Amino acid sequence: ASLADQPAFDKAAFEAMIPERHRAFVEEVLERYRVPKLPAGESPYEGLLAWTHAGARSQVEIALAHPIRLLVNALGTPPRDVIDQVHARGVQVAALCGSVEHARRHVEAGVDIIVAQGSEAGGHTGEIGTMVLIPDVVDAVAPRPVLAAGGIGCGRQIAAALALGAEGAWMGSVWLATTESDLHPVAMTKVLQATSRDTVRSRSMTGKPARQLRTRWTEAWDDPASPGPLPMPLQFLLNADATTRIHRYAHLETSGAKELVGTPIGQIVGRMSRVRPVRELVHEMMTEFVDAVARVHALLEE
Amino acid sequence: ASLADQPAFDKAAFEAMIPERHRAFVEEVLERYRVPKLPAGESPYEGLLAWTHAGARSQVEIALAHPIRLLVNALGTPPRDVIDQVHARGVQVAALCGSVEHARRHVEAGVDIIVAQGSEAGGHTGEIGTMVLIPDVVDAVAPRPVLAAGGIGCGRQIAAALALGAEGAWMGSVWLATTESDLHPVAMTKVLQATSRDTVRSRSMTGKPARQLRTRWTEAWDDPASPGPLPMPLQFLLNADATTRIHRYAHLETSGAKELVGTPIGQIVGRMSRVRPVRELVHEMMTEFVDAVARVHALLEE
Repeated sequence: ASLADQPAFDKAAFEAMIPERHRAFVEEVLERYRVPKLPAGESPYEGLLAWTHAGARSQVEIALAHPIRLLVNALGTPPRDVIDQVHARGVQVAALCGSVEHARRHVEAGVDIIVAQGSEAGGHTGEIGTMVLIPDVVDAVAPRPVLAAGGIGCGRQIAAALALGAEGAWMGSVWLATTESDLHPVAMTKVLQATSRDTVRSRSMTGKPARQLRTRWTEAWDDPASPGPLPMPLQFLLNADATTRIHRYAHLETSGAKELVGTPIGQIVGRMSRVRPVRELVHEMMTEFVDAVARVHALLEE
Repeated sequence: ASLADQPAFDKAAFEAMIPERHRAFVEEVLERYRVPKLPAGESPYEGLLAWTHAGARSQVEIALAHPIRLLVNALGTPPRDVIDQVHARGVQVAALCGSVEHARRHVEAGVDIIVAQGSEAGGHTGEIGTMVLIPDVVDAVAPRPVLAAGGIGCGRQIAAALALGAEGAWMGSVWLATTESDLHPVAMTKVLQATSRDTVRSRSMTGKPARQLRTRWTEAWDDPASPGPLPMPLQFLLNADATTRIHRYAHLETSGAKELVGTPIGQIVGRMSRVRPVRELVHEMMTEFVDAVARVHALLEE
């Protein structure tokens, strides 16, 4: 079991595991881009998200205190006792996967719905493309239902996902460019201008490969001068202060912080060129989906 | 213009550009895997494929001497004068691309059919997944027809390609595991056993990123001890002798040559688990295609 599996393992112990060389590298990058320090008394964003068992289990408790129908795990197979606890409350469990092996492990643990996520996706993602992954996973876990994720943001892509054998589509990135989104304004500007080539799978954010906008931050960690990202959850912890400073000072004319602002996002960022209400986006997706299905079906009748 | 653009530039001049360090590295890998030298008088596979303008233009001449309908370029935009020459013979021109920028360049040069190839593909391929690339390219070059490539090897994937807006599917890897294939027997055994995770985009074969089976050869070039692949066409030329020796001695019990045998192939290698006649494969694809389209269309009627 890794250190993150030990509920009693606290933040100070993780902090102590971060090499001085890594702290110095982060500070050097921030200085190079003239990112000021936080004002006295202001704290960086804290927390290890759900990347320790203690953190994840407390989030499950919070989720189950609400009238939910589905609980979804993004990274790894949920522990069997957590799945049993969730099932006992009449709630279904889904989990993301990037390979057939991950999908089989989810099914063995009792996961109800598999979300197969191709390499095109934003955030933590593997190397197998959606086109290949979906039929592979559908065949491996049948009759367990599979949702397709990765590179899905328009109606034609939803139709393709269903043609591949998925029961539905799971979308993330596309909601970032909506009026309902709380994305940082500087990141939003970058998202609206980015093409499908402007993302990169990088360990610089969390320690595991996650697709995100390519920025001077991801480039700095790819540079030969970089000490290399730390394993999860240390990399995220190492970045906490830097991330807060970068976002806080991105608007400052005298700072290069804006060069460092990024966001997890998938390759469909290239289709996202204006901010729209979710309602409008969904309506357009559904119209395009129906058109795509009708167009392909018409080929059968020719 | 690069050296490869100069028709008069001959093989000896390319040979002279290969650093001694790279020759020594190749020989060291071959010795480590106990790959014998070629018998006296036997020559390695020669030629630079079509990676010089002189070579490519002579291949166009040969192609046009046959009663063909379509000529397809795999790497880069064909020169405008070649396209004009082909068109003058009533033959259409297609070209592969991995991004919207490539597709636009093809259209400007006069290419008739764009083959948009996602990252899942075997051989030279980019980083954008098929699910994202196809609608991007279709929208960028409409009404020019687009064929979808990358990760297509079964009927559901053909249906998905058409749903994404392609006029058809372009398949390569899937034909390798057929009775009609001339794939090296050791590579065939590896192909039948490989999963979708067993490929890698590597510059070790040609100098440009090409998806292929992960082998001890691709790993050797990823190793910190590697001098790094040379630019195209030097890397392929550097490998000529090694490739011939590896394939020739792959069956030798005393040699580790079999560990080094690979083949360009896409991520659908995971679906290729037995050798079948092309006729049977196509029939199965068509049946699955019709089923997939009918299944998705039935959702509209619910």
